[in-house]
Amino acid sequence: MRYAIIGTGAIGGFYGGRLARAGFDVHFLLHSDFEYVRDNGLRVDSYDGSFVISHPQAYASVAGMPPCDVVIVALKTTANGGLPAMLAPLLTERTLVLLIQNGVGVEADVEAALPGVQLAAGLAYICTTKVGPGHIEHTSNGKLSVANYSCRDQGLIDGLLADLGAAGIRAAAVDYAKARWMKAMWNMPFNGPCSVLGQTTDRMLASPSGERLVRALLAEVIGAARACGAVGIDESVGERMIEMTRNMPPYSPSMKVDCDLGRPMEIEYLYTKPIAMAREAGYAMPHMEMVEMQLRAIEELRAVGPAVGQ
Amino acid sequence: MRYAIIGTGAIGGFYGGRLARAGFDVHFLLHSDFEYVRDNGLRVDSYDGSFVISHPQAYASVAGMPPCDVVIVALKTTANGGLPAMLAPLLTERTLVLLIQNGVGVEADVEAALPGVQLAAGLAYICTTKVGPGHIEHTSNGKLSVANYSCRDQGLIDGLLADLGAAGIRAAAVDYAKARWMKAMWNMPFNGPCSVLGQTTDRMLASPSGERLVRALLAEVIGAARACGAVGIDESVGERMIEMTRNMPPYSPSMKVDCDLGRPMEIEYLYTKPIAMAREAGYAMPHMEMVEMQLRAIEELRAVGPAVGQ
Repeated sequence: MRYAIIGTGAIGGFYGGRLARAGFDVHFLLHSDFEYVRDNGLRVDSYDGSFVISHPQAYASVAGMPPCDVVIVALKTTANGGLPAMLAPLLTERTLVLLIQNGVGVEADVEAALPGVQLAAGLAYICTTKVGPGHIEHTSNGKLSVANYSCRDQGLIDGLLADLGAAGIRAAAVDYAKARWMKAMWNMPFNGPCSVLGQTTDRMLASPSGERLVRALLAEVIGAARACGAVGIDESVGERMIEMTRNMPPYSPSMKVDCDLGRPMEIEYLYTKPIAMAREAGYAMPHMEMVEMQLRAIEELRAVGPAVGQ
Repeated sequence: MRYAIIGTGAIGGFYGGRLARAGFDVHFLLHSDFEYVRDNGLRVDSYDGSFVISHPQAYASVAGMPPCDVVIVALKTTANGGLPAMLAPLLTERTLVLLIQNGVGVEADVEAALPGVQLAAGLAYICTTKVGPGHIEHTSNGKLSVANYSCRDQGLIDGLLADLGAAGIRAAAVDYAKARWMKAMWNMPFNGPCSVLGQTTDRMLASPSGERLVRALLAEVIGAARACGAVGIDESVGERMIEMTRNMPPYSPSMKVDCDLGRPMEIEYLYTKPIAMAREAGYAMPHMEMVEMQLRAIEELRAVGPAVGQ
C-alpha cells in the first residue's frame, strides 16, 4: 500500500520512517524541515534500532504528492483548519485517513469537511521527540491503537495493521469511543491545569488540592465518556492512571510546553469539543469549562500583549 | 463609647484614627508597627484632611487592653484563626464586634467560637493604603456599610453609626445578607481568576474568554446569593459592576497582590465558605469550585517549593 505522512514530526516521522525502512512506498509532507530532509534524509535514533532514510520521498506541499491508500495525519490539531485542503488531493474512493492526533471530536470535523472520507483514529502510546531537523529520538515503545471511525472496508484496516506489524510497530484495533475517551481521561485532567497553574504532573499530585482538582476533572471525563457511549471506562481505570502519573518523573504535558513557549494550544479538541459533545449527550462538565475558559483567555491575552506588573 | 481596633492597618488605622481624632477613647492593637506607632504616632494622609494621632493608646497584645463597647476587627481573614482568643478579653455582655473583613461566612465562624457574641459586618467602600509603618494614605471615600448580624441591642448599632458620623465617616445600616453577597459579586469573579491567571481586571475583560469566565462566575454568585436569602441582587447589578470594572484603570485585586507576594490568600472566606454555604442552601457553584481548588493548590505548592522549569 502507498502511504502519505502529513506532518513529519516526532510521531509522523517515526511511523513513516519505520514503514519506509520496511520497504513501503511512503511520501512525506514536511514544512520547515523540507530542505534539510530532502538533502540529508530522515534520521531516527531509537533504543530499538536506529536508522536513516537517506532519500525519503519528501514534499513541501501536497501538490505533487500522489493519491495514497493510507494517509497518516500527525499534525497538531491546531493546524487542522488547513487539513481538508491538504487531504483532498491525496484521497481516492478507498483511501483510509488515520488521524494520530490528540483529543476528542477530530474525526467528526474532518468528516464534515470531507463527506464520505474513510477515517480511523490512531492513538500512539509512545515516547518520541524531534531533537533537530529531520532527527527523531525514540525512547520508549507502546502500542499504536487503531480505532475505526468511518472506514467501510475492514480489509483496509486489516491491511494497515499488517503493514505496521511488518514495520515492527505493535498495532491493534480498538473501539473508537473507548480509545478516544480513554486518552482524554489523562489528557483533560492534566494538560489544562498544568498549563494554567504552570506545574508539572508530579507537583499537581503533590498538593492535596491539586489532586482534588485532578480528581474532579477525572470524574467529569468518566461521566462524559459514559454519556458519549464509551464502554469500559470507570473509576478504577482513573485510579490506576493517577497512580501511574504519581510514579512518573516530573512531566510537562504537551499543552504546558506549548503554553510556556507561547505556541497555540490544542484547546479545541482537548477541551472545547469534548465538553460540547458531552453537553449534547446531556452531561455537563462545569469544572472543565472553567479550565477551558482560562486556557482560551491565556491564548487571547497573548495577542493583547504582556501583562504589566502592578 | 470605648473602641478597640484589632488590626491597625490601612482600614483599621484609618477608621480608628478618625474616631480618635474626634475625641473617642480608641485602643489600637498593632503587630509589626507597634513600637514605631507608640513612639511616632499614627499618621493619616488624606485628600479629606490629613492628621496625626501623636499619642495613640497602642498595644502589642490584647493583654492590657480594656474591655470595650465596640471592637472593630480589620485583620485579613487569613489571621482569623487567632481572632477568638484576641477578642475574648475585650468583650463584655454588651460589646459589639464590627468585622470589617472580606468575604462571606466570617460572622458565622466567629459566633461559633464565641457563642452569644454581638456581631455586625462592616463593608468599607474606600481606598486606603498603608504606605509605611503607622502611615496610611487615604485617596477616595465611599461609605462604610454596617450590617447587623447578631446584635440584640439596636441602640448599640445606632450609637456606633452616630459616633462614626461624628468622626466624619459616612456610615449607613444595610441588610446583612445583601451587603455580604453584594461585595462577593465583585470579589468572587475577579479576585481568584486574576490571581490564577496573573492578570489585572482590565485584561480579564479585554479577552472574550476572560469576560465569559467572569460572567460564568458572576452568574454563580447571583444564584448563590439568592439561595442564601440575599434580596435585591440580580443580573442588572452584575452588568453595572462589569461596566464599572471595565472603566477602572488596570487593577490588581487584593488576592492577586497577596498571590504575587507569596502571602496567604483569603481563600477561605472569599471562596471556600460561600461555596459551602450555597451548597448547603441547595445551590452548586462548580465553576467557582475549580477556581477555589486552583487557589488552594497554588498556596500548597509554595510549601512544596518552586516549580523547576522543564
